[in-house]
Amino acid sequence: MSLLQALKWRYATKKFDIDKRLSASSVDALLQAANLAPSSFGLQPYRIVNVASSALREQLAATTRNPDQVNSASHLLVFAASSSVGSEDVAAFLDRVARLRQVERASLAARETQIAGAVGKLEGASSLAWAQRQAYIALGVLVAAAAEAGIDACPMEGFDARAVDRILGLDAQGYRASAFVLLGHRAGDDPAAAQAKVRKPLEELVVTV
Amino acid sequence: MSLLQALKWRYATKKFDIDKRLSASSVDALLQAANLAPSSFGLQPYRIVNVASSALREQLAATTRNPDQVNSASHLLVFAASSSVGSEDVAAFLDRVARLRQVERASLAARETQIAGAVGKLEGASSLAWAQRQAYIALGVLVAAAAEAGIDACPMEGFDARAVDRILGLDAQGYRASAFVLLGHRAGDDPAAAQAKVRKPLEELVVTV
Repeated sequence: MSLLQALKWRYATKKFDIDKRLSASSVDALLQAANLAPSSFGLQPYRIVNVASSALREQLAATTRNPDQVNSASHLLVFAASSSVGSEDVAAFLDRVARLRQVERASLAARETQIAGAVGKLEGASSLAWAQRQAYIALGVLVAAAAEAGIDACPMEGFDARAVDRILGLDAQGYRASAFVLLGHRAGDDPAAAQAKVRKPLEELVVTV
Repeated sequence: MSLLQALKWRYATKKFDIDKRLSASSVDALLQAANLAPSSFGLQPYRIVNVASSALREQLAATTRNPDQVNSASHLLVFAASSSVGSEDVAAFLDRVARLRQVERASLAARETQIAGAVGKLEGASSLAWAQRQAYIALGVLVAAAAEAGIDACPMEGFDARAVDRILGLDAQGYRASAFVLLGHRAGDDPAAAQAKVRKPLEELVVTV
C-alpha cells in the first residue's frame, strides 16, 4: 500500500478493538518515525509521553469528552510541547551535534549564538506556540507512519490540558500537553469507519500563483 | 524503501539540483497527501500556495536568509494558516460533510453548534496558533510523503512572514504565511547531505509513564 493509499485508508478512529493490542516494537517504530520529523533548527522542543499505566490512562481519559474512546485504544501518546525553550536547550542540542557529527564543540559557537538569538526572541505564548507547531509536525509524521503500518490512530485536542499537565506532572518539567494520539486497531463496529472522508477539493486547498 | 528508511534518507536540503525539476504529477501526489492529513474537527484551516511564478518566487526568496537555497528548489510551497476561522468556515465544512456523506444538512445542526462553539472560543493569537498547528500536521504528512517518494524537501520558518503575506496578498484573504516547504532533488555537492542526522535519543524524546 502506498502512503497515499494508506492515508486514504486511515480515519480518526472513534472506537478501537479493545482485544487488539499493538506490539511494543510496532509502537517503537512509530516513535522512531516521529523522532525523525524535522523541527525548527533541529531543536525538537517537545516530548512524547507514552502512557502505559492504566490508572493514569483512566485519569487522562476522564479529561476528554469521550473517555470510552480513549480507554478502548491500545496505546495513548501525549505530545507535550516545551513551554520554555532556553539557552540550555540550545547548548544541549549543539552538544549532540558535536558528538554525532564528530566536530569540535567550539566550532559551533556562531551557530549557537544564532539559534539562541532566534529562540530568545520568542516570548511566553509565542514560544509555546512555536514549540507546539514543531510537535505537530512530528504528530503528522507519526500519523502517516501509523497509516503506512496499517495501524489506526486518532489525534485529539479535546482534553483539559491543565488537568493533563497536572496528572502527568508536565508543568514542573516545563512542558504543556498539546495533543493526544490514540493508537490501535479499529473496532469492527466503529460507525466512523464507513463514513466517506471529508476533505476540501484539492483546488480549494491549493492556490497556484 | 519503508517510510522509516525514507525518513532516515531525507534531510533539510540546503542546495537543490537546479536542473532536476519535479513533474507536476509528483507534486500533485504530495499535495493530495497533505490534503489527507487530519485536522481539528476536519476543518483544515489552512491553504497551500504553490508558487509557480518565478518573479514571485524571487520576491519570496528575498525575504529569507538564504535566497539561493529557495531559488534552487524545483518547487516552493507556502503553508498559510487561517487567521480568522469563523462560523462561515464551519458552515462550509458541514455543507461539504452533508454532500460527501449524503446526509441531510439539517441533521448536522448539533455538530455545527458544537464546532462553532469550540472555534468561537479561540480568539486572535490563539485562533491563529491553532490554525497553524493544524497546518503543521499537514506539513509533517507532506514531508513524509516526499521522503517516501524519494523527493527532497526543506521546511523553513526563516522568512519575513509579513512580507510574504504582502507579496502573496494573504492578509486580504485572511491567511498568514506560516511555513515554506522547498521541494526538489538534492544537489550532488550539498554539504548538508553528508552530515549525520542529529536527533534526541529515543529515550529522551519518549517518556513512558
